[in-house]
Amino acid sequence: MRDKVRVTVWNEYRHEKRSPEIAMIYPEGIHGAIAGFLRTQPDIEARTATLDEPEHGLTSEVLENTDVLVWWAHMANHEVKDEIADKVYWRVLNGMGLVVLHSGNLSKVFRRLMGTACSARWREAGEKHRLWVVAPGHPIVEGLGEYFEIPHTEMYGEFFDIPRPDELIFIGWFQGGEVFRSGCCWYRGRGKVFYFQPGHETFPIYHQREVQRVIVNAVRWAAPVSVVNFRDMAEAPWFPEPIEPFASDQ
Amino acid sequence: MRDKVRVTVWNEYRHEKRSPEIAMIYPEGIHGAIAGFLRTQPDIEARTATLDEPEHGLTSEVLENTDVLVWWAHMANHEVKDEIADKVYWRVLNGMGLVVLHSGNLSKVFRRLMGTACSARWREAGEKHRLWVVAPGHPIVEGLGEYFEIPHTEMYGEFFDIPRPDELIFIGWFQGGEVFRSGCCWYRGRGKVFYFQPGHETFPIYHQREVQRVIVNAVRWAAPVSVVNFRDMAEAPWFPEPIEPFASDQ
Amino acid sequence: MRDKVRVTVWNEYRHEKRSPEIAMIYPEGIHGAIAGFLRTQPDIEARTATLDEPEHGLTSEVLENTDVLVWWAHMANHEVKDEIADKVYWRVLNGMGLVVLHSGNLSKVFRRLMGTACSARWREAGEKHRLWVVAPGHPIVEGLGEYFEIPHTEMYGEFFDIPRPDELIFIGWFQGGEVFRSGCCWYRGRGKVFYFQPGHETFPIYHQREVQRVIVNAVRWAAPVSVVNFRDMAEAPWFPEPIEPFASDQ
Amino acid sequence: MRDKVRVTVWNEYRHEKRSPEIAMIYPEGIHGAIAGFLRTQPDIEARTATLDEPEHGLTSEVLENTDVLVWWAHMANHEVKDEIADKVYWRVLNGMGLVVLHSGNLSKVFRRLMGTACSARWREAGEKHRLWVVAPGHPIVEGLGEYFEIPHTEMYGEFFDIPRPDELIFIGWFQGGEVFRSGCCWYRGRGKVFYFQPGHETFPIYHQREVQRVIVNAVRWAAPVSVVNFRDMAEAPWFPEPIEPFASDQ
Repeated sequence: MRDKVRVTVWNEYRHEKRSPEIAMIYPEGIHGAIAGFLRTQPDIEARTATLDEPEHGLTSEVLENTDVLVWWAHMANHEVKDEIADKVYWRVLNGMGLVVLHSGNLSKVFRRLMGTACSARWREAGEKHRLWVVAPGHPIVEGLGEYFEIPHTEMYGEFFDIPRPDELIFIGWFQGGEVFRSGCCWYRGRGKVFYFQPGHETFPIYHQREVQRVIVNAVRWAAPVSVVNFRDMAEAPWFPEPIEPFASDQ
Repeated sequence: MRDKVRVTVWNEYRHEKRSPEIAMIYPEGIHGAIAGFLRTQPDIEARTATLDEPEHGLTSEVLENTDVLVWWAHMANHEVKDEIADKVYWRVLNGMGLVVLHSGNLSKVFRRLMGTACSARWREAGEKHRLWVVAPGHPIVEGLGEYFEIPHTEMYGEFFDIPRPDELIFIGWFQGGEVFRSGCCWYRGRGKVFYFQPGHETFPIYHQREVQRVIVNAVRWAAPVSVVNFRDMAEAPWFPEPIEPFASDQ
Repeated sequence: MRDKVRVTVWNEYRHEKRSPEIAMIYPEGIHGAIAGFLRTQPDIEARTATLDEPEHGLTSEVLENTDVLVWWAHMANHEVKDEIADKVYWRVLNGMGLVVLHSGNLSKVFRRLMGTACSARWREAGEKHRLWVVAPGHPIVEGLGEYFEIPHTEMYGEFFDIPRPDELIFIGWFQGGEVFRSGCCWYRGRGKVFYFQPGHETFPIYHQREVQRVIVNAVRWAAPVSVVNFRDMAEAPWFPEPIEPFASDQ
Repeated sequence: MRDKVRVTVWNEYRHEKRSPEIAMIYPEGIHGAIAGFLRTQPDIEARTATLDEPEHGLTSEVLENTDVLVWWAHMANHEVKDEIADKVYWRVLNGMGLVVLHSGNLSKVFRRLMGTACSARWREAGEKHRLWVVAPGHPIVEGLGEYFEIPHTEMYGEFFDIPRPDELIFIGWFQGGEVFRSGCCWYRGRGKVFYFQPGHETFPIYHQREVQRVIVNAVRWAAPVSVVNFRDMAEAPWFPEPIEPFASDQ
């Protein structure tokens, strides 16, 4: 029905350049790995952008031609320039989908879209994360079973300071005793946002079949909807003339 | 990605047989009109079923081969047999989509799925209904603008005794002074339900382009998601063995 | 501002009569234990009702004078008469609060109010249940910290076939590897419903301070709101006269 | 159960000083009128603060001693200093209630808490606004009937660019043909936010009984919940030690 979903995968791309161990897991960067499995889908096309490119690789031209932006970030959330974060923010309100991965919860764009601090408990102990499906009719779980597991990952735990999700998809169980809302959807303006917890850089999480499946599904879910003649979200339009005449006896 | 969505359009088919005026608007029945425009879509196939057929046309074989059931009902909600309503109910919990139109809000199946009375204020005055989009990123509004109008229809007004919608898509403005949650989504078990108010039998509402568009979009949204090895919703499975070993010091 | 909240605590009261071990934990029955700690609150008054009383102790007079009904049930959900379940159902839609405990998830009233099967995974292994607060601004968590634990209980696990909660309060972590939406709120008609997982009969769970605190808070939250001239929820009122005159050029 | 709710009513207080007509309606300012009716409640105490006071009257000491902040703003949203808006924002995440009135939808604090533009259609034609109750079990509608009317007001219409409300309380009907989500609740961090549309400065709206009732109810609903040992929302706490020991075979 629709042309291909045009995805841009954004990554800080710092860990991979600094740590040989991480580079071995992701020789083309985390962005390269994600773009790679997205490109295997006939209805998706993917390009990449990284922090150290001019304008972080997110020029107005790139953003205008992006249907869904996938965002991986961790150590350099504060280095993203405010004017770029601002452009991404308005693109989301005007319809672009946003898929935020792992520590992208503390990125400028996600925090601004959520309206909360987005902080959580955390621990690095390489423990198990089991993700339970709590929305089995939702397109983001297409192809999954009742749960799947990440064998070794970083723990994120509640209280996760997010607005109540519009759609709660996964609840995570952590071996060390915590739980987490590990997959959540929100509507913002004309755009859609999905947050997905899996993805610590020191584990080969984006090579795992179920994780790839969720990200592919999320890209399809987050793709823009074509509405006609809908206003730019930055406007608060003024309508001097009522649509309906006021009845005579008013 | 997916084969065609298999739709069954169910209708009481009583008004059309009793009233020549209604038969003129819908010479093939309301079900025929709806199946007709659904069939123009390359990714949808549609058949019909009606109240006076054996088992109301909803045999187990038909239901098992239905991805999305569209339901129009009005005067004969009480004539639907409990065992058929029961079968439809469980099919929805196990993944079949359900699109409930107009006075189908008082059908056995919808009321059971909602858990509430589903009653509302109402009036027949042929007045105007303007439907405002309040979820512009939702796939059910694809192709629409900020609002559209039904020129003449029956009024349904708040308080509409439904559970809070999981996704509120349209809010209706009625000329006589009422509002209505005119388009609402819910998740139930593995299935999805969409209620859409437009559709009184004495007006040619299902010939209107925007109404057709919404129903087509709703069929696509409500189509089942393929999960693997998910239990039948009628079961409460017993797991004697924990997934995780209890740690030694517990 | 308001007179006392009038609570009726309903219990099957079968386990306690059959098992000396359970009777030792709850010498006055589970209903007696719950009514006991509710009565320590100056703004709450509590009475009890049980399955084997005439009309299950839930006469129209009792229900009309109940602001919040607390419901504990397990082995005899099917013995509750349909006409009593029906009366309770309509009282909830017309404003009575309902607090459903533990295996009351499979009671006729709760299932009817939810519209789903309310089934879940389960296991009896006496394992640990840790309840994490995910709605720290909600009145039901007043007095609690980030989490609390039930040392030994029955496991209930996802997928829990409930409608999406209007307010998700607690997410439970189970030692054996499952998670559960352990505390959930819904609005139904003019009434409010809270489901709370803790409470297996073979453990002294209702003697635990945090559990008592949650039930007290839930009773206050579920107490009816006084609206004026609001219709009975069983009615779908007919309004021949529009509130607003139709404008002349319509 | 609880001491008095300590309310601070904040107002720009510009319209009243510039326009004799507005000053006649609100001789003590809009803040004075609101604080006045709040003070008639035995469980509420109220003080006021305005834009032109030092630190806009919102010193750290004032904010720390405010349970619920009521916010009226219109022409000078941009004059609120960022550092003050920032302090208010964090106080809300840490538990303070916020009741935002009328054109406060475009205030810095509300927009930051929502994560969206909060823009809407608008028109000044002195038309009628009828507010329908769609959550009759919610404490904010205590004492109301099925709807109430503001005889003459400014129109705000959909699409209103807000996140999906956690609780939608009122849907507004406007004489000129629009609808609006006129009363909405959100949870943010440990705090609660209520937005209420009525209140244009040129009409005596805050002298109307139903409007006063809603604001009193909203103050009670938004009052903080006492949780114990809950972290500051600005923190993302680090937990090196798991709560649960990792089982030996992991």
